[in-house]
Amino acid sequence: MPDTAPGVPMDHPLAPAARAWFESLRDRICAAFEAIEAEAGGDARFERKAWDRPGGGGGVMSSMRGKVFEKVGVNVSTVHGEFSPEFRRSIPGAEEDPRFLATGISLVAHMHSPRVPAVHMNTRFIATTRAWFGGGGDITPMAMQAPESLEDAATFHAAFQAACDRHDPTYYPRFKRWCDEYFFLPHRNEPRGLGGIFYDWLGRDDADASRLPEHFAFTRDVGEAFLDVYPRIVRRRMAEPFTPAEREHQLLRRGRYVEFNLLHDRGTLFGLRTGGNVEAILMSLPPEVKWA
Amino acid sequence: MPDTAPGVPMDHPLAPAARAWFESLRDRICAAFEAIEAEAGGDARFERKAWDRPGGGGGVMSSMRGKVFEKVGVNVSTVHGEFSPEFRRSIPGAEEDPRFLATGISLVAHMHSPRVPAVHMNTRFIATTRAWFGGGGDITPMAMQAPESLEDAATFHAAFQAACDRHDPTYYPRFKRWCDEYFFLPHRNEPRGLGGIFYDWLGRDDADASRLPEHFAFTRDVGEAFLDVYPRIVRRRMAEPFTPAEREHQLLRRGRYVEFNLLHDRGTLFGLRTGGNVEAILMSLPPEVKWA
Repeated sequence: MPDTAPGVPMDHPLAPAARAWFESLRDRICAAFEAIEAEAGGDARFERKAWDRPGGGGGVMSSMRGKVFEKVGVNVSTVHGEFSPEFRRSIPGAEEDPRFLATGISLVAHMHSPRVPAVHMNTRFIATTRAWFGGGGDITPMAMQAPESLEDAATFHAAFQAACDRHDPTYYPRFKRWCDEYFFLPHRNEPRGLGGIFYDWLGRDDADASRLPEHFAFTRDVGEAFLDVYPRIVRRRMAEPFTPAEREHQLLRRGRYVEFNLLHDRGTLFGLRTGGNVEAILMSLPPEVKWA
Repeated sequence: MPDTAPGVPMDHPLAPAARAWFESLRDRICAAFEAIEAEAGGDARFERKAWDRPGGGGGVMSSMRGKVFEKVGVNVSTVHGEFSPEFRRSIPGAEEDPRFLATGISLVAHMHSPRVPAVHMNTRFIATTRAWFGGGGDITPMAMQAPESLEDAATFHAAFQAACDRHDPTYYPRFKRWCDEYFFLPHRNEPRGLGGIFYDWLGRDDADASRLPEHFAFTRDVGEAFLDVYPRIVRRRMAEPFTPAEREHQLLRRGRYVEFNLLHDRGTLFGLRTGGNVEAILMSLPPEVKWA
């Protein structure tokens, strides 16, 4: 955390550890995905590209195009600065002091096989005059009601439920519902996928910072759950044969993913409106898409 | 115009003629595009699909997938009802009385060949306690700076300039600039294409309705200009050979089209937020798209 003065958000005592965690999780996820590519006989590797944010901080995009992972992007970023007046009212704690720090990891994988679900995972730590963690993970099988899709979703949910239950018995039901409500396309009256968990503002309303280490521990467990479960699901499905019709259906389903991200996703719209790194923000868009 | 009482917008004296014009223009455009398909040795025809709007009125989607026109949609709709309270403040004349009528034609064509520009055209008549025409047309060549793209854009612009100049010498410079400003992707700092014209609220501020027939005549001339110029451009380019690299570039350029329509296009966002016909609104999205 360079260029900071004591007591401002950029100097939050948890920021260096949170940043280090997100970066190490990125390294382990990239290694796990590259191992899957190797098992499939491929030699694809993640390419990294660093970017600076004019207002302060920056990030690293890691992306890979392989035989199994048609396109996967893993972004880490640590940015700081001041929220513009129009945003201060909507950000907890920013009305008193517009300075902020945000550090996090964001991942989207679009798979070559329509039998392997697409996936999204994101966790972050944000500090203004308050501080909180947020994030989650959700899975998007292509054939939403197929037995294998429901099996994959059950596996995915079980992993996140275990992570939640280690911390608070209310987390999983609350965060699962939040995910279902968030990843929904109102104009289509359709869910984006088969859900997972979504949480935000964890710690925002705490009286003091004493529980932040616990929220951080939960956020690490969310990352560990993802790293454990998604490779298992990929390995279970990646060798299954699929038909051209299934591939075609996958390309159409990806259109819904685009619609969600460009019409509704808070992170995407917030990033584009605040002059974030366009390439990193839109790395979530699928490599190939069709609309009927 | 069924279900109307005298004096309300649904009963606007110009509405039946405007609606009849938009529908006849649709018929002539569809016939012209089908003739191009036939010249290319194809037998594609437009398919029509009617839809009803729960709040009042409805429309007809006409779409064709051919050898030249990879995907083209031509929508006509005539809808009426009441603007919701949240929209009344932003619609001219709707604060006094929320009832409205809107009738129009909207067209987007995505071409199979990357040598043929994509195109958009839309004209409409809207009546609240005021009444106005709006619309325009713009062209999106794939290789934006290639000589043939600039030639096509010049041809396109000349046709619309002639239509404008027949009515008001200030129209073309104003409406061309408006188009350039509107079809711009701020997050990419890029224009969507090579422009055309864009106009709106023509007649909104008139003291009375005496000039509406002239605004209608201008709007008809915009439609005639499109019907004349775009088929000429298509015929000029449709037989030109292209490379796989040009096709790949086209698919990436189409991503920008999606980004514009879902992030910025007023008509798209307005339609989706007001419960419009999703299939008709999103008919503008390209059939196949890639993101790098």
